[in-house]
Amino acid sequence: MERKKNLKMDEANEAITNLGGVTTESNKDNTTITKQISSDDQKEKPLDKETLLLAGTLILDAKGGRNLEYILREKYVRSYIWYNSFYLRWALYFCLAFNLSLALFEHPAVPGASIPYWGTMIMELVCLCYFTFRLSHAFYFQYTKVFFKDAKNICVLVMILLTILDMISYIIWSNVDTDVPPVRWSRPLRPLFIINFPDGKQIRRAFRNIRRTIPDIVNVLILFLSSVLLFGLFALKLFNKRGFKYPNGEPYFSNYFDSIWDLYVLVTTANNPDVMMPAYDESNWFALFFVIYLIICLYIFMSIVLATIYNNYKKNLKNEVKQAVFQKRKKLAKAFDLLKVKHNHHEFVSYSRWTQLVTIILPGRSETHTDLLMKILDHDNTNVLSKKNFLNLADLLQVQLTEVKDRLTLLEKHFPSIYNHRISEYFKFFVRHRVFRYWFDLLIIVNAVFIAIDLDAADWFFLAMFTVEILSKLYVLGGKEFMSRFWNIFDVVIIGGAFVATIIEYLDFDNKESNIKDILLVLRVVRLIKLFGSIKRFKVILQTLINIGPSFFTYGGVIFVFYYFFAIVGMEIFNGYITYYGYDSEMPDTAFCGNVKLNNSIFYREHYCNNNFNDILKSMVVMFELTVVNQWHVIASGFVAVTSKVARLYFFVFHLSCVVIILNIFTAFILEAFILEYTLQTVPRLESVVESKIKELGLGIGMKTRKHAIQGPSGDEIILVEDEQTEDTDEVDNQQVETEDVDNEIDLSKEKGLKFHLKKHSRKKTEVLLQQMFQGELDDDDVDDIETYSKERKLTLEAFT
Amino acid sequence: MERKKNLKMDEANEAITNLGGVTTESNKDNTTITKQISSDDQKEKPLDKETLLLAGTLILDAKGGRNLEYILREKYVRSYIWYNSFYLRWALYFCLAFNLSLALFEHPAVPGASIPYWGTMIMELVCLCYFTFRLSHAFYFQYTKVFFKDAKNICVLVMILLTILDMISYIIWSNVDTDVPPVRWSRPLRPLFIINFPDGKQIRRAFRNIRRTIPDIVNVLILFLSSVLLFGLFALKLFNKRGFKYPNGEPYFSNYFDSIWDLYVLVTTANNPDVMMPAYDESNWFALFFVIYLIICLYIFMSIVLATIYNNYKKNLKNEVKQAVFQKRKKLAKAFDLLKVKHNHHEFVSYSRWTQLVTIILPGRSETHTDLLMKILDHDNTNVLSKKNFLNLADLLQVQLTEVKDRLTLLEKHFPSIYNHRISEYFKFFVRHRVFRYWFDLLIIVNAVFIAIDLDAADWFFLAMFTVEILSKLYVLGGKEFMSRFWNIFDVVIIGGAFVATIIEYLDFDNKESNIKDILLVLRVVRLIKLFGSIKRFKVILQTLINIGPSFFTYGGVIFVFYYFFAIVGMEIFNGYITYYGYDSEMPDTAFCGNVKLNNSIFYREHYCNNNFNDILKSMVVMFELTVVNQWHVIASGFVAVTSKVARLYFFVFHLSCVVIILNIFTAFILEAFILEYTLQTVPRLESVVESKIKELGLGIGMKTRKHAIQGPSGDEIILVEDEQTEDTDEVDNQQVETEDVDNEIDLSKEKGLKFHLKKHSRKKTEVLLQQMFQGELDDDDVDDIETYSKERKLTLEAFT
Repeated sequence: MERKKNLKMDEANEAITNLGGVTTESNKDNTTITKQISSDDQKEKPLDKETLLLAGTLILDAKGGRNLEYILREKYVRSYIWYNSFYLRWALYFCLAFNLSLALFEHPAVPGASIPYWGTMIMELVCLCYFTFRLSHAFYFQYTKVFFKDAKNICVLVMILLTILDMISYIIWSNVDTDVPPVRWSRPLRPLFIINFPDGKQIRRAFRNIRRTIPDIVNVLILFLSSVLLFGLFALKLFNKRGFKYPNGEPYFSNYFDSIWDLYVLVTTANNPDVMMPAYDESNWFALFFVIYLIICLYIFMSIVLATIYNNYKKNLKNEVKQAVFQKRKKLAKAFDLLKVKHNHHEFVSYSRWTQLVTIILPGRSETHTDLLMKILDHDNTNVLSKKNFLNLADLLQVQLTEVKDRLTLLEKHFPSIYNHRISEYFKFFVRHRVFRYWFDLLIIVNAVFIAIDLDAADWFFLAMFTVEILSKLYVLGGKEFMSRFWNIFDVVIIGGAFVATIIEYLDFDNKESNIKDILLVLRVVRLIKLFGSIKRFKVILQTLINIGPSFFTYGGVIFVFYYFFAIVGMEIFNGYITYYGYDSEMPDTAFCGNVKLNNSIFYREHYCNNNFNDILKSMVVMFELTVVNQWHVIASGFVAVTSKVARLYFFVFHLSCVVIILNIFTAFILEAFILEYTLQTVPRLESVVESKIKELGLGIGMKTRKHAIQGPSGDEIILVEDEQTEDTDEVDNQQVETEDVDNEIDLSKEKGLKFHLKKHSRKKTEVLLQQMFQGELDDDDVDDIETYSKERKLTLEAFT
Repeated sequence: MERKKNLKMDEANEAITNLGGVTTESNKDNTTITKQISSDDQKEKPLDKETLLLAGTLILDAKGGRNLEYILREKYVRSYIWYNSFYLRWALYFCLAFNLSLALFEHPAVPGASIPYWGTMIMELVCLCYFTFRLSHAFYFQYTKVFFKDAKNICVLVMILLTILDMISYIIWSNVDTDVPPVRWSRPLRPLFIINFPDGKQIRRAFRNIRRTIPDIVNVLILFLSSVLLFGLFALKLFNKRGFKYPNGEPYFSNYFDSIWDLYVLVTTANNPDVMMPAYDESNWFALFFVIYLIICLYIFMSIVLATIYNNYKKNLKNEVKQAVFQKRKKLAKAFDLLKVKHNHHEFVSYSRWTQLVTIILPGRSETHTDLLMKILDHDNTNVLSKKNFLNLADLLQVQLTEVKDRLTLLEKHFPSIYNHRISEYFKFFVRHRVFRYWFDLLIIVNAVFIAIDLDAADWFFLAMFTVEILSKLYVLGGKEFMSRFWNIFDVVIIGGAFVATIIEYLDFDNKESNIKDILLVLRVVRLIKLFGSIKRFKVILQTLINIGPSFFTYGGVIFVFYYFFAIVGMEIFNGYITYYGYDSEMPDTAFCGNVKLNNSIFYREHYCNNNFNDILKSMVVMFELTVVNQWHVIASGFVAVTSKVARLYFFVFHLSCVVIILNIFTAFILEAFILEYTLQTVPRLESVVESKIKELGLGIGMKTRKHAIQGPSGDEIILVEDEQTEDTDEVDNQQVETEDVDNEIDLSKEKGLKFHLKKHSRKKTEVLLQQMFQGELDDDDVDDIETYSKERKLTLEAFT
């Protein structure tokens, strides 16, 4: 014990000496230091397990961006770690998806999938039980006050109760003999579970952004809707008494509500020339009214809605990102406080504590590895970690680290004599040569021509060639590296799929081959996309698209929530009114889509009967059609014909919320994300502190010292060669780069075997990028007053942009 | 002469002494100074007329943003001034408009306006003659090299020659007996005259911006079109052999070109559910193809097109504005070089030269006025103008300056006893009170209700009340101030119009009153808009819209150029094929819109016959309908039916250029302009150096010292009270503010009668605002290397935003 204490102090002293200019005060009062360092005796010995666990969990929270608060005691932390375990999380995801998918089987069920209501209710109950379990689990490791202060938890609780209430009332309702069919009214709320569990972080953030954006656009929307009302009044006065008629004989602007409906539809352009034609046929000057209306309400107001949304979206996004960075810092600062050693007003994490920490946050790593990480974090070469350096830990953990032996291909490891044989080397050189790539690009073009002129005979040849390409690349690059490139994975999936499908088609002599043929065809045509991936100018755009891909899915989720809500509501209202029976039926039951009210309607004439709400899948397709907007008024008119004009409200609300607001927010997101990503790909990229340190030490993969680059004898300047993300690197001999010596001022020879993956053209998540962008704007110590700070900054930014 | 020289030197010496710390070197070499100041003797005396003229013209150029280069000699400068004279400019505008309007009278003429071809040709010749005169005028005062280096001049020249060639060939052609009707092929080029005369500066700038944006979006467009081609191939394979049919019996994806046409139309959403329905009726899974296609090509690619355009637009806009600022500075620097006096390495414009200059640039101003302007420019109180201060001159000239006597109402001036009588004062107090405003807002609402329930009887009452409102305000505020507010002008126009129309209606007992009734109705309804103008939250948005109004017209001009081009081309191709005869004609000549090929077409069934190219007005309406996009494929199908499928090319090119590119640039413009304006209205505004100096001196209208504001005895701090642009100022007693003493550190009592109009909520042109924003980024002396500078800056900005 005493020995350890001395060791600790020695180390701390050493660290302090290394700090340089500040050592003068260090030998004042050793006793007070020991007091300060440790509140009780245990701090002198290596950290106890609990503190280590707490600190490790906090750091992993910071790395993963988890924001749940929990009681900082071992028992609860272990419970929290279990809460975040893979199985429990995926069980939740499964339950959420399963709960939503129940709509497939419930009353207006997909044909052939109907289950009695008690069946789906039991399934739903199982889901609810798991949700309850999950909630009580969180309740266990959180302070009661914290738990109940969180609106999300209350929300989940209320929804569970509502659902149970709904089930009971439904059972009673359906067993009582009434004319009104029972309604499962809690079903539209189901997607709210996604938003309110802490695991749906991304989608919740998107929703929060939407919620914050809405108040700002309300003014514009009111102005816009008012101007529609005003124009409606005007149109009514202008056209009401002239006796114009639509081509199908319907009255033209006959009352105020029809007027504003027609004009609202006109803003969506869905009835564009049609609504104008009767008046225009009468006098050319009436066209002026519609032109002015469209310019004001469509081109100006809709653009301003987009502008307002975009403006607010940007503002909110910045705040969101800053909040996230702030949370990360707070977690790390907390971890630091747990781990720190205090010595003469200097707080730091010593080397020994660092090694202990690494065993928790990166289990199973070698000592070299641990040392190297420390060296990178320790920006001032003091051999201890100050708070400032420690706060970069989460960034460091984001950077991938592999050892050189990982980068050997399996073949190279096991049959080095064959793999490194002269012939093999020639082959590798050939595969890496650009002629190899050009040849296969040409092959794709030829394949495209063959597909266009419907010549399927040669497909075996193409398939064989592309398979050869994949195998060659796999041989040269090794499985791991091969799979790290998007276009290779793409190839494997497409060609592999085509291969399998072709074999199945070949084996299967039945007549049901048509489905396989379709799939094959898709795979054959999709192969052509690779052509664009091999042209550099398009690659930047495609790479950008791939990078913002994950965020697309977030917004896909947001839209799904709205779709699900409206689809369920739509099914409750409109289900069964319109059914598709084909269009040549003469039977009274099945004529006019099963509803004689559709006789003579445009809906029937345009053959829209399949656009109905008879099951969740059909409803979703209708939702999508309504989102695309065109002819939405015709779809609406069909349901109005079979119910009443009040049905327009449903379609109006859907359009306003999903198209005007959500879709514009989606556009705003793409605008911002695309501009951001594209800029980062074309402009020298932002570097985090950690990355610049890694570069400084020459430890990135694909890095060489100038000495190697120009083969000259001197110059330690480090340059970054094109790394593996760019296509040209296919030709760079990675092995050479990796095995070379890194001779820097600092002797890192023992870490030679370790390399970091630094991505020049970022394949990073947009979120990480955003965080890096704003990190510089946050003061390191000033983590507390982020709110005021961000407000000030907002003003500055607004004034600037 | 000698006296003047001494005076000059005295003054300069005085100025130098005022400069402060730099006087030590001033008494070294007086002889060299005199040499340096003037190349010849004339510089010692007040400036000669020529120099003054040159400098004045340069300054006015800088103020007006004119960029034409001319020979700096009196003769040519006078010619240049004449070139810019009101009459010659408006004659040009008239000729441009007249030349374009000839399309009304030429062959497919508006019914009843047809003129034989020699008639329009003579008119066109007159226009061409004026263009030639204008061009040779510019040729006269420019260096030949400069003139021919300007692509615009060459362009105009070539177009004049082409037009004449076209006329000759048309005359020959129409007198030779051929089957092919003669074509006036130069007509689509006419709008190019607008762009290529130096007077169409704004519109040319917009075009330049478009031209610079296009190369950057070409990649995205190629990728987008390629993916349409790819999906077309896929759709063809998928649907070709299944024998689906559209509801009207047309084949479904029968060949490749139809496939890509249908899919291209689908990207515009115009045929949205229709194109899917036949396949969807067969199997639900086919819907997936269309959903994926729309997500990729519509939601992702079209958003990316917008993102790319917006990104580049912003970049180009910044460069444009910087160029403009740079040009302005260059002109001012040139003027400074002409006017400067050099004294001991200090260059400046002396007071005497300044007074001379003012007589040129602001003729007829009093001495006080001149002094005041100097004081404002002279930021360092040196009594002379250094180059740095002089460069702000253009900004100063942008700020309006009026004398207090201007601000007296006519009544106050001529009948002060009545106007300032106690009863009159009560009345003024009443009118300025908010109850007065609320009462009339209420009246508008009541009026709206009356209009809605079709109660016209009370309209006389409303009209009378609103007239009373206008007259009261006019009495209180005086004509000039009354008219300086948008909503007042709006009122006068609307109510005045309604008044006149009502009287005409009253006098006119014939049956042709219907037209007047329509106008009256419009005026009555439009009045309601004022309601929004009186609600503050909407006022910000509306004010923003009004501010970016002028720029709307610029883009309106751009779109007009495209419309005109496509309309003329369309008329040459499609004129006469389709004619509107009503839809119940049984005569063989007039059935099916005069073309039997339209039988059974959707075009005819939807009653689209009036959408034709039979005259320029109808063509313009078609252009607008095509811009709105909805049903454009139906319009196209009509013209395809009466000609051939090649006609699709015309509609495709129109859509790609006008909708995908121009309309997105328009959206980008609104995004940028709206965000900019809105930010400036909600955030403390940017101030130019000049404006802050004016405020510092307390010379803005509506400014008072703190002393007045709190009626206390001390505190000279200046605050800016709400100025006249905001609605609340209606209640502020302007008279009081203006007549109060401005007691500042500097004694400005003699300038008491002068006030500057400073606009807090900017009614400035967006351009001026933009210039102010970027002015700070330009180094004052470093005007030469703006190109490299702006490039660097661009990168920084990109990395930042």
